[in-house]
Amino acid sequence: MRVQTAIEIGKVLQTVQTGLARVEAKMKTVESSLFAPLAGAFVDLIGSGGKRLRPALALMAAQVMQATPVSDGVIALAASVEMLHTATLVHDDVIDGALLRRGAPTLNAVWNRGATVLAGNFMFARAAHFAAETGNMRVIRIFADTLETIVNGELHQLSARNNFRQVKDDYYQRIYAKTASLFCAATEAAAILAGQDETAIQALRAYGYHLGMAFQIVDDILDFTGNEATLGKPAGSDLRQGTLTLPFFYWLHAHPTPDRVLHTLEEAYNLAADGDEEPWRGLVDSAVEAVRTGAVVDAARHEAIDFLDKARADLAALPDTLHRRAMLELCDFVVQRTF
Amino acid sequence: MRVQTAIEIGKVLQTVQTGLARVEAKMKTVESSLFAPLAGAFVDLIGSGGKRLRPALALMAAQVMQATPVSDGVIALAASVEMLHTATLVHDDVIDGALLRRGAPTLNAVWNRGATVLAGNFMFARAAHFAAETGNMRVIRIFADTLETIVNGELHQLSARNNFRQVKDDYYQRIYAKTASLFCAATEAAAILAGQDETAIQALRAYGYHLGMAFQIVDDILDFTGNEATLGKPAGSDLRQGTLTLPFFYWLHAHPTPDRVLHTLEEAYNLAADGDEEPWRGLVDSAVEAVRTGAVVDAARHEAIDFLDKARADLAALPDTLHRRAMLELCDFVVQRTF
Repeated sequence: MRVQTAIEIGKVLQTVQTGLARVEAKMKTVESSLFAPLAGAFVDLIGSGGKRLRPALALMAAQVMQATPVSDGVIALAASVEMLHTATLVHDDVIDGALLRRGAPTLNAVWNRGATVLAGNFMFARAAHFAAETGNMRVIRIFADTLETIVNGELHQLSARNNFRQVKDDYYQRIYAKTASLFCAATEAAAILAGQDETAIQALRAYGYHLGMAFQIVDDILDFTGNEATLGKPAGSDLRQGTLTLPFFYWLHAHPTPDRVLHTLEEAYNLAADGDEEPWRGLVDSAVEAVRTGAVVDAARHEAIDFLDKARADLAALPDTLHRRAMLELCDFVVQRTF
Repeated sequence: MRVQTAIEIGKVLQTVQTGLARVEAKMKTVESSLFAPLAGAFVDLIGSGGKRLRPALALMAAQVMQATPVSDGVIALAASVEMLHTATLVHDDVIDGALLRRGAPTLNAVWNRGATVLAGNFMFARAAHFAAETGNMRVIRIFADTLETIVNGELHQLSARNNFRQVKDDYYQRIYAKTASLFCAATEAAAILAGQDETAIQALRAYGYHLGMAFQIVDDILDFTGNEATLGKPAGSDLRQGTLTLPFFYWLHAHPTPDRVLHTLEEAYNLAADGDEEPWRGLVDSAVEAVRTGAVVDAARHEAIDFLDKARADLAALPDTLHRRAMLELCDFVVQRTF
């Protein structure tokens, strides 16, 4: 299943392969700016990244009008976006105390905590450096605003943990801050750097936003429906650490007596906080089972599909180019990930 | 002794009082950008800051040619510099696991670790935001470069901990990265924003550099000569955590057999790492005592005085204004702190 997905996305990203190679090289210029004993570890860490979806989005958005090679500014932006994303992943490991990510030991498990915090900070610094290299004030403001939105969102998420009474609207704000904000920063800033007109810039920003919202919803579904082999962590790990996502809300509200469920959850959580984790684990296990079986996943998935329909519509006024087709295919990829 | 210092610096900073009040207000605009439950805690944390030396330097540098009220850009820069400084202090608490700073419980002791990492990140984001607000590309590049220098220096410092064989030159690189880089970023960027000519910009940058080097040397001396009441932590805490500073190098090289000292230190440190802390504590205690008594402190202090002489010389070509006099007085203040 994993391999199939990898092939699909590999095909879509072929359109920006040359640009992605330049971004990869750019990200690895840490070597020259960091003192030698750590440079290797950093490059390994950066190299072990994911699909490079965010820089790919920037490259596609920059080339959607005409497929000329992108400027160094666009490459710097794409590297900035991915470096910022990587920095937040590194810090997440400290925040969650996670020891595994993508099935590989996290930096936190190998290095000590202090070095992990600093490694993330170094990546933030590189991201800021790359953003400054674009030389475009508007792009730099987008970078600074997005950084603030992401961190603010993480603070929200942390403070909302194990608050079972939160409303579903909080969830959309969180996934915008966590994921969609960087997706739309990538497409908007790339369009600006490519010198596109304001209508195209706004359309590409909207596309990034809608795609990002769908991407995170699907990610949150996969956290329930996946398994240790596909996720690199146990199913339902969001809920296990008290982070409520869309499938949870559907599961809760499909229940005849949601208030009683909430009460039971709170009681079990308090027992777990006191050391008796049995009832809490049992509840999470049964919630994960209930979510996996059909209706809840379909309902959540439908929301992702709605966002993707909007993302496709955002591209409607743009010319039918190779990169626009790739951006449409990305919409298909995002929803296919659920299978 | 503490109160006297406070009065001295208070007098010098009077020249930039109006500007500092604007910086303070600017820093506290986090309230509007952060979600309510955390805003209060942030403002408290920012408000509990130190002497605001870095923003004061920016304000003085901006006004050194003529004492007209500074622009919003200079205020944004000054707020950016102090916010960046505060962010590094917050993260230092996580890196060191420190529970006390300036005699007050650190954020880390009150909040949990994840929230502390995110609080520091939020401050980095605000700092980037304020830097972007200056609207000046050169200033933004200085900000990004300085952030990278600071973090790179902290990584160096962490990796050099308990490496007793390091050379004294490493120390100067570390204190440049840790302290002087931000001092000279503040003066250089302020001079740029004030529209000063390149000669003045470079003179003010050099002044910030030399003052910052002296400031950190004095700080490192105070770490040995102070006590729990003045420092808010035990004397010799740098050495206790394996960070070697200038007084240590003077102490070591004044010894007839430095190699034997190093060997003893390493043995004691290894024992401490294995759980037997007695010999290590004894060694550090006797090193702290040896440093306190005269010659070592004088030698280290002399280096600080040399840096301050250079800082004064950097200002020689600038007109004799109220703010230039304040900048000269800052040099006196820095060295007076040793008493």
